[in-house]
Amino acid sequence: YIGAVSAPLYAENPEDEVSPRDMQQINSKGNMDFCIKNIKLADFGRREIELAEDEMTALMALRKAAQGEKPLAAAKIVGCTHVTAQTAVLFETLKVLGAQCRWAACNIYSTQDEVAAALAEQDFPVFAWKGESEDDFWWCIDRCVNVEGWEPNMILDDGGDMTHWIYKKYPHLFKKVKGIVEESITGIHRLHQLSKAGKLCVPAINVNDSVTKQKFDNLYCCRESILDSLKKTTDIMFGGKQVAICGYGEVGKGCSAALKAMGSVVYVTEIDPICALQACMDGFRLAKLGDVVRHVDMVITCTGNKNVVVREHMDLMKNGCVVCNMGRSNTEIDVNSLQTPELVWQHVRAQVDHIIWPDGKRIVLLAEGRVLNLSSSTVPIYVLSITATTQALALIELFNAPEGRYKQDVYLLPKKLDEYVASLHLQTFDAHLTELTDEQAKYMGLSKYGPFKPSYYR
Amino acid sequence: YIGAVSAPLYAENPEDEVSPRDMQQINSKGNMDFCIKNIKLADFGRREIELAEDEMTALMALRKAAQGEKPLAAAKIVGCTHVTAQTAVLFETLKVLGAQCRWAACNIYSTQDEVAAALAEQDFPVFAWKGESEDDFWWCIDRCVNVEGWEPNMILDDGGDMTHWIYKKYPHLFKKVKGIVEESITGIHRLHQLSKAGKLCVPAINVNDSVTKQKFDNLYCCRESILDSLKKTTDIMFGGKQVAICGYGEVGKGCSAALKAMGSVVYVTEIDPICALQACMDGFRLAKLGDVVRHVDMVITCTGNKNVVVREHMDLMKNGCVVCNMGRSNTEIDVNSLQTPELVWQHVRAQVDHIIWPDGKRIVLLAEGRVLNLSSSTVPIYVLSITATTQALALIELFNAPEGRYKQDVYLLPKKLDEYVASLHLQTFDAHLTELTDEQAKYMGLSKYGPFKPSYYR
Amino acid sequence: YIGAVSAPLYAENPEDEVSPRDMQQINSKGNMDFCIKNIKLADFGRREIELAEDEMTALMALRKAAQGEKPLAAAKIVGCTHVTAQTAVLFETLKVLGAQCRWAACNIYSTQDEVAAALAEQDFPVFAWKGESEDDFWWCIDRCVNVEGWEPNMILDDGGDMTHWIYKKYPHLFKKVKGIVEESITGIHRLHQLSKAGKLCVPAINVNDSVTKQKFDNLYCCRESILDSLKKTTDIMFGGKQVAICGYGEVGKGCSAALKAMGSVVYVTEIDPICALQACMDGFRLAKLGDVVRHVDMVITCTGNKNVVVREHMDLMKNGCVVCNMGRSNTEIDVNSLQTPELVWQHVRAQVDHIIWPDGKRIVLLAEGRVLNLSSSTVPIYVLSITATTQALALIELFNAPEGRYKQDVYLLPKKLDEYVASLHLQTFDAHLTELTDEQAKYMGLSKYGPFKPSYYR
Amino acid sequence: YIGAVSAPLYAENPEDEVSPRDMQQINSKGNMDFCIKNIKLADFGRREIELAEDEMTALMALRKAAQGEKPLAAAKIVGCTHVTAQTAVLFETLKVLGAQCRWAACNIYSTQDEVAAALAEQDFPVFAWKGESEDDFWWCIDRCVNVEGWEPNMILDDGGDMTHWIYKKYPHLFKKVKGIVEESITGIHRLHQLSKAGKLCVPAINVNDSVTKQKFDNLYCCRESILDSLKKTTDIMFGGKQVAICGYGEVGKGCSAALKAMGSVVYVTEIDPICALQACMDGFRLAKLGDVVRHVDMVITCTGNKNVVVREHMDLMKNGCVVCNMGRSNTEIDVNSLQTPELVWQHVRAQVDHIIWPDGKRIVLLAEGRVLNLSSSTVPIYVLSITATTQALALIELFNAPEGRYKQDVYLLPKKLDEYVASLHLQTFDAHLTELTDEQAKYMGLSKYGPFKPSYYR
Repeated sequence: YIGAVSAPLYAENPEDEVSPRDMQQINSKGNMDFCIKNIKLADFGRREIELAEDEMTALMALRKAAQGEKPLAAAKIVGCTHVTAQTAVLFETLKVLGAQCRWAACNIYSTQDEVAAALAEQDFPVFAWKGESEDDFWWCIDRCVNVEGWEPNMILDDGGDMTHWIYKKYPHLFKKVKGIVEESITGIHRLHQLSKAGKLCVPAINVNDSVTKQKFDNLYCCRESILDSLKKTTDIMFGGKQVAICGYGEVGKGCSAALKAMGSVVYVTEIDPICALQACMDGFRLAKLGDVVRHVDMVITCTGNKNVVVREHMDLMKNGCVVCNMGRSNTEIDVNSLQTPELVWQHVRAQVDHIIWPDGKRIVLLAEGRVLNLSSSTVPIYVLSITATTQALALIELFNAPEGRYKQDVYLLPKKLDEYVASLHLQTFDAHLTELTDEQAKYMGLSKYGPFKPSYYR
Repeated sequence: YIGAVSAPLYAENPEDEVSPRDMQQINSKGNMDFCIKNIKLADFGRREIELAEDEMTALMALRKAAQGEKPLAAAKIVGCTHVTAQTAVLFETLKVLGAQCRWAACNIYSTQDEVAAALAEQDFPVFAWKGESEDDFWWCIDRCVNVEGWEPNMILDDGGDMTHWIYKKYPHLFKKVKGIVEESITGIHRLHQLSKAGKLCVPAINVNDSVTKQKFDNLYCCRESILDSLKKTTDIMFGGKQVAICGYGEVGKGCSAALKAMGSVVYVTEIDPICALQACMDGFRLAKLGDVVRHVDMVITCTGNKNVVVREHMDLMKNGCVVCNMGRSNTEIDVNSLQTPELVWQHVRAQVDHIIWPDGKRIVLLAEGRVLNLSSSTVPIYVLSITATTQALALIELFNAPEGRYKQDVYLLPKKLDEYVASLHLQTFDAHLTELTDEQAKYMGLSKYGPFKPSYYR
Repeated sequence: YIGAVSAPLYAENPEDEVSPRDMQQINSKGNMDFCIKNIKLADFGRREIELAEDEMTALMALRKAAQGEKPLAAAKIVGCTHVTAQTAVLFETLKVLGAQCRWAACNIYSTQDEVAAALAEQDFPVFAWKGESEDDFWWCIDRCVNVEGWEPNMILDDGGDMTHWIYKKYPHLFKKVKGIVEESITGIHRLHQLSKAGKLCVPAINVNDSVTKQKFDNLYCCRESILDSLKKTTDIMFGGKQVAICGYGEVGKGCSAALKAMGSVVYVTEIDPICALQACMDGFRLAKLGDVVRHVDMVITCTGNKNVVVREHMDLMKNGCVVCNMGRSNTEIDVNSLQTPELVWQHVRAQVDHIIWPDGKRIVLLAEGRVLNLSSSTVPIYVLSITATTQALALIELFNAPEGRYKQDVYLLPKKLDEYVASLHLQTFDAHLTELTDEQAKYMGLSKYGPFKPSYYR
Repeated sequence: YIGAVSAPLYAENPEDEVSPRDMQQINSKGNMDFCIKNIKLADFGRREIELAEDEMTALMALRKAAQGEKPLAAAKIVGCTHVTAQTAVLFETLKVLGAQCRWAACNIYSTQDEVAAALAEQDFPVFAWKGESEDDFWWCIDRCVNVEGWEPNMILDDGGDMTHWIYKKYPHLFKKVKGIVEESITGIHRLHQLSKAGKLCVPAINVNDSVTKQKFDNLYCCRESILDSLKKTTDIMFGGKQVAICGYGEVGKGCSAALKAMGSVVYVTEIDPICALQACMDGFRLAKLGDVVRHVDMVITCTGNKNVVVREHMDLMKNGCVVCNMGRSNTEIDVNSLQTPELVWQHVRAQVDHIIWPDGKRIVLLAEGRVLNLSSSTVPIYVLSITATTQALALIELFNAPEGRYKQDVYLLPKKLDEYVASLHLQTFDAHLTELTDEQAKYMGLSKYGPFKPSYYR
């Protein structure tokens, strides 16, 4: 959480017009197998990576624990993820564990050029820069897989573009691929479709839905980011405010708990009676949105559904009501219904629009109804660490799994590894686990080393 | 929650020595097919049942909802459960839904005689009284199943004794039995053993592990009963006290949250890294018991494991430390290890012993290490209502299931019915569920009427 | 909090008919200057006192700290308070600090006879037994003050009866009295009336309104006892229940916080806008009772006012609504208004009545509207310790105050001593205070030893 | 909370070099009695004021309530405060209530030029612009008081500069001045010094220390701003983190509660035993900073004292520890002690410095130890509204007070008005106060219209 040192620190900010593809750069060791913005940024990037290492203690512990056995020796991994200081710690961990990697960015804007430079300087084949064109994007991916004398046997993907490219261009490579590790919901959706269509030809692990990752992404992270996001966009005071929260899944639970703790009066809407009953037992009034929308000061959607807040609701809201979306999709608020001639849109500041009714009433729409915390809250590095550790363990698992353990299907991370991810993250909190005695393990019918719970346990 | 009218209210407390088995009683309609303590208590018992009906709104709503279709018409149910005002509401509900029932007690002490009388007065064949002998117990069960011209086709059991008796004495009856509904952990364990041994010859539903019931039994109920139980046994003030809570499953989560809310400083011990990480994120220090046991004021076990608190721990505790068990088994505290000559046991009041060390140090042991809230806290009627409603729906499900839906195995209550139990209980809270629109249901790929979540969802 | 060993433990329970006044008992040292139930109970009582000493660590620390200087040497104290193990620790502390004491009970029922015996055995002149008549009561008080060759110079009173008796019978004694320490609200009210009437002839310290005592009596103790009291009288489940709490002073704050923490939805009523705003900022809806009374499950009064809940409110309550009073006076609920012919009162169990309306609706009235936690919750020994320590310090202060510091008026305990009471109680929590450096004290303009806040600071 | 429309919205951003003092501007009505940046910004400023009016409902309600009686008719107020949309609502309220005002800025940077323009356009004599020089500053103040044919009779000050100027230059004006209303701690300190020195020649009201304002400035506002400030400066995740909070006054209480609610483990340090005991009862470990500083992740000072965190503490902190100050003064962290050669300061981003020890350990110092929430959190408009309303009522009180009610001294706002400020702010929360009946008022010995509590009550 020390946080990345921000870019403005280095004076030399090369705004040169030449595309990286048109430059031939070379690192201090004479290596040229990379394509990045500017190799000169390597020192600065290395410092960023070192700061990130300080925080990603779980990966560093994994390096130490598994360094001897090199569980990824002989692994040849092609990666397509964000290229940042935190993912650099992941990739360098894979290397320490024995893997050879080639790496492209999964997003044309998110690359930290100085980090890419630091990797390139260490002979890491990385193909990514901030501000790639669509064409650059696929070119970089291609540079990872289309290599003479080198064929990948593992895929680390975030969004499914690497997997897609190999399917499309080099399907023969799948013969040697032992598995795919995919993080994003989109990518997992694509894998499931392949699987349904009988076209998935290697096993895949869905790292998004592991218990540890889910709890952090949805419950713990949202509990903090809802407050953060609202404060960064408005100067609302939470105390005494009435808030409607749509949906009481993990995200809704996190948002409700946070706002209640800040002194808001929270109403919850739900479709699922079991979640609804949980809301009641947690002290929230369960209501239909239409019944409370007139008097609340904020409406926050957390359902994953579409058109949860519609024009009829917004017509009833009182002046100044804040409307925003913490859910997964961008469809929860029917923003299109606000695109009518009688309503005036006033862009007030980044992420904030006022929609003004003919009678002067304003509602405050945040992030144009898109997922709020992605737009206006920083994801804590701790959450990134959980993702990265989960990815590393999934790669190790797939690469070393005995023949037949995994079929051509999409799997969740085995419970035991999910528990291992958690245990690697306990250290930060100076937390001390208790170990089962032999007698206790026998009594419970458990192994002393886990898994400790059935796979469905949350 | 109005609560049962306590027994002392009726002056006539018949302490007659004659066993009910040796008396022939007859109700006002001339019926004699029952065996109870005293038919004269019927009016008083009816009042108790009416009070219970006021609270068990879910069952009353079910009566109304299903009265027309009589989903249990032709069902012949033998029941073996506690005989109390609350279960009477359940059995009379089964009758309203079309079933014929015969009923014995599952415990020799727990029968409310006035309630049994009220049922008998309504021609309900009930065989139970407070203070049965072991022999009486099996005799009553037998009277339920060994009937000329009547064969049960459903079993409602709590502990497995009815099932056991039929297996042992009348195995042929199973030909007609469509299923068993079992509530207790013991009974479920017995069913699983039968199943493993290939001897389970009808389907069974485990109603103990439905999501709704679990949440109430463990999380919500324990959150309240830990405070209640401690106050009823000691005059401890919670504020500022340091407490070690062993185990952070649902029970541990409930206890920790309650004590934190009362101003205690809580340390949690765990073996499972995922639960441990949850404890950290909820603001609790995760420690080993041995590391904090010297300075805590209370130790509460919630693990389900054995020997979690052992003599070495108790030797280290400070003077006045309270030790108790909220877990499922009575084995969590190694009480036997305190049975040594140098320690003096002083029974202070019901549920409270002081164990005195040679140097004068005392620890305060509650309920001799047995499960505390069973001994010293009342189970709220709301929790009983959830159990009873779950049982009723499980009976309806098994009785009406199409051929082949259930094999000879132990099942959980289907998610959709679990959700229905929850929805019937929302009314108490004046809670209003939202319904999916057609468009939303389609978007989510859900039926508008549930189930709304995968079966593993908690 | 180990708690008193309950009476049933000693087999010998003397139910003798002879009044203590008609017996002449003698202790093992030949002393007869006492009047109690039964000197033979002394050993048992001593054990109770020793257990209490274990818990009243603040008084024990005070004994140690002030033993050398004997700040009460030459003090002659007449006391009129409850005679229990805890107050015995107080009186024996006064003795250790140098005082001579004589002691009568302030309540005809509250004396623990075995404790009185233990004191008598140690030559402590105590005049009290459980079950005194009115006449006995005044006789005991008289035995404290009407002594040849001994005149009190300090009064420790709880209710004002000792003070009243001296005013009435021996007003000349006031010439030597250096001050009165009074604990009860009633007693303080009487002192203020004397003061207004110009008849108060010595200084008095009101120990009831010291900050430390107030916070514990009202906020911290009620936060726990509201839950305790409700659970001991009803089997209500708090989760999801709607509750109206009348008054948001310290008691209301404590009750609201506790019920919110247990998952209740709390509405607050207030007359004072500042407290009302605090309720809002703490996340409670502020409402008029009439506007929410139809749908709440409980109404709890905490105002100190009268007729806060009246018949009109109770006519509107729903079936099963629980009504109770946590305030100071017994007047908050207009119970008289329920004494009308059409309503049926049904006594359900100790502290619980059902009031039944003609249409069958019942409300559940607790403790007949009297202060609930006095009736059905144990006061934690920790709270008693704070009171006793405050009394001891007030006696020391008045006895040693330089001429002129206190006039013939009613005073609060000086802030510095109030802070000292708090500091003596911090030890229980293994709490470590920080000391000001000289530089910091100077910067803040404070003494390093307090007082640290202005007298009005709460 | 809709928030001010940010400046970038208006394209025309006059960066002209000419000082406002050297321009002669004229409003649309021909008036020239003002000095501001650019009269053309008036429309834009008016919109900002209108948005602020929407939020400052208390002042708007006061306008309505007091419009008829014009309690400030004949008042001539000179004001020296921040010139923002919110204070504009205050000044225009004063005008509506009958006052004539002249207004200068109390800070050379804080003026919103468009707001000043809007006021000037309405003939309001305002003398302020963003980026005044020191000389400009005093010149503007002088233009308020040094007016032919107009003499102020009330002063509204924030910092004491207006008061100081009149003392220095125009002391004769005090003859007509009926009182001073001062908001800032600095200004109040100056008034107290004048008073001590016998030089205060008019009554003054300290609006900073009214109960309502204090609660919001310190407790409620800090509860939110601590989270906000930390998130805006670092990407720390609060869950599971260990935090030391120095001081458990209102600010410390707010910060502790907020972090506890987010899942942090909080240690509190205190010098005052009463506050310390409160921390214990609220569930916090009370410790000395030196004893916990090695293992905490954050240290937050809230004491108002100096050198609470010193070099010795910082030498012991672990890598990545965040250090910041939420207290009143900038002296709490001994930042000077970090200015030694062996430590490297690295400025990471606005408000964030890393201090690097020779062994590579970094601590993260926020706002260079200055008060954090002033630097990095927005003050909610609700808090500003409370201040402005308090100022308005204090002006009305002093102006209309009967001869002799106030001497030449510094007063707190009378309790009744403090309550009135609160009641005007309840509306936002749709909160409904209960009124005393005549009978209840009599029983309590209170007026039905307050004050409801003694003046010391918090």
